[in-house]
Amino acid sequence: MEKVLEEILSFRKERNWEQFHNPKDLAISLSLEASELLENFQWKDSQEALEENMDNIKDELADVLIYSLMLAHDLDLDVQEIIHNKVQKNAKKYPVEKALGTNKKYTEL
Amino acid sequence: MEKVLEEILSFRKERNWEQFHNPKDLAISLSLEASELLENFQWKDSQEALEENMDNIKDELADVLIYSLMLAHDLDLDVQEIIHNKVQKNAKKYPVEKALGTNKKYTEL
Amino acid sequence: MEKVLEEILSFRKERNWEQFHNPKDLAISLSLEASELLENFQWKDSQEALEENMDNIKDELADVLIYSLMLAHDLDLDVQEIIHNKVQKNAKKYPVEKALGTNKKYTEL
Amino acid sequence: MEKVLEEILSFRKERNWEQFHNPKDLAISLSLEASELLENFQWKDSQEALEENMDNIKDELADVLIYSLMLAHDLDLDVQEIIHNKVQKNAKKYPVEKALGTNKKYTEL
Repeated sequence: MEKVLEEILSFRKERNWEQFHNPKDLAISLSLEASELLENFQWKDSQEALEENMDNIKDELADVLIYSLMLAHDLDLDVQEIIHNKVQKNAKKYPVEKALGTNKKYTEL
Repeated sequence: MEKVLEEILSFRKERNWEQFHNPKDLAISLSLEASELLENFQWKDSQEALEENMDNIKDELADVLIYSLMLAHDLDLDVQEIIHNKVQKNAKKYPVEKALGTNKKYTEL
Repeated sequence: MEKVLEEILSFRKERNWEQFHNPKDLAISLSLEASELLENFQWKDSQEALEENMDNIKDELADVLIYSLMLAHDLDLDVQEIIHNKVQKNAKKYPVEKALGTNKKYTEL
Repeated sequence: MEKVLEEILSFRKERNWEQFHNPKDLAISLSLEASELLENFQWKDSQEALEENMDNIKDELADVLIYSLMLAHDLDLDVQEIIHNKVQKNAKKYPVEKALGTNKKYTEL
């Protein structure tokens, strides 16, 4: 991911946009892009959405990833490390013997 | 990212959760996690949020990344490729000479 | 709605929370509550969600309405007027003869 | 609100859109509209957003209210009642003596 992160950071630097990119506004933007991704599924089931909107789904998922990587970079976070740590935490919240094949939240297990 | 993706997919497989993970519900979940990330900044400026909530920010950003990588995997998308393509598109939407140092949307440039 | 609006504003005033309630943070909070409402439908179809989570759905929908009414109040907006105006606009964007029985966006009609 | 609710329901009926309006998709749509409202504040402080985007803020807040009222109607909920009940609950979660002038969550009070 080094190479795409560099692309992302160059894109921002060339436009002198770091001034707007405080963590709060990045978190807002990430949430907005996640909604734009979800909009592709509005009033549709998954199959219909994929058939009609695949190009836009790619673009919006990319935007979510772009803001996620930017925010991680700005906060000096190693994405692989935070993901690994969170999967470990989730494994404790959802132990296999309780979570197997159920869609319940951990608070209801 | 190969290694964390494998962790993520094993976590899901062990719990037999693929049955719930259709793309529409993954997009919903991604949006929910992005909101939980943003919640750390509610009623606060960036600095106050980082001082008080850094651990939770890491966890929620990780959850956003986890769902993003899962969804990309399930749709057979190469995350580096979709990011690269989107940065290229954004560069056309926001040419440097128009976008330099402004927070306007491309529709207003 | 006069009476519930008064309840809402008294609740806020008693806690001296107007200081946090700038429009941007109210818009963030509204978005967070809408996500908490949606969380009740995560991994579930509508029927399953209603059977399991009806009480929480009521509460989260109420929170969405509370922030909406607060924000409208703070911006000096008449909710009935903005709703009426928007329905009129939507009727132009989605003329009956084009929009009848279709789930397409107005940009695709 | 009787009158605007009737407008909203007529708008939907004329387009034969009840078929798409299951509660899950309404909750998704509500969340999307709340994001579109929030987008007006992206990269901006409240004042700048209000100066530049007031017309759009009205429209998006109206859309949030429209979906909220539709969903309440479809679930047979009395909006005034659910708001009143939720303000009562919030008052217990945030007792005045603990919540006065603080932006902390109830879990941290």
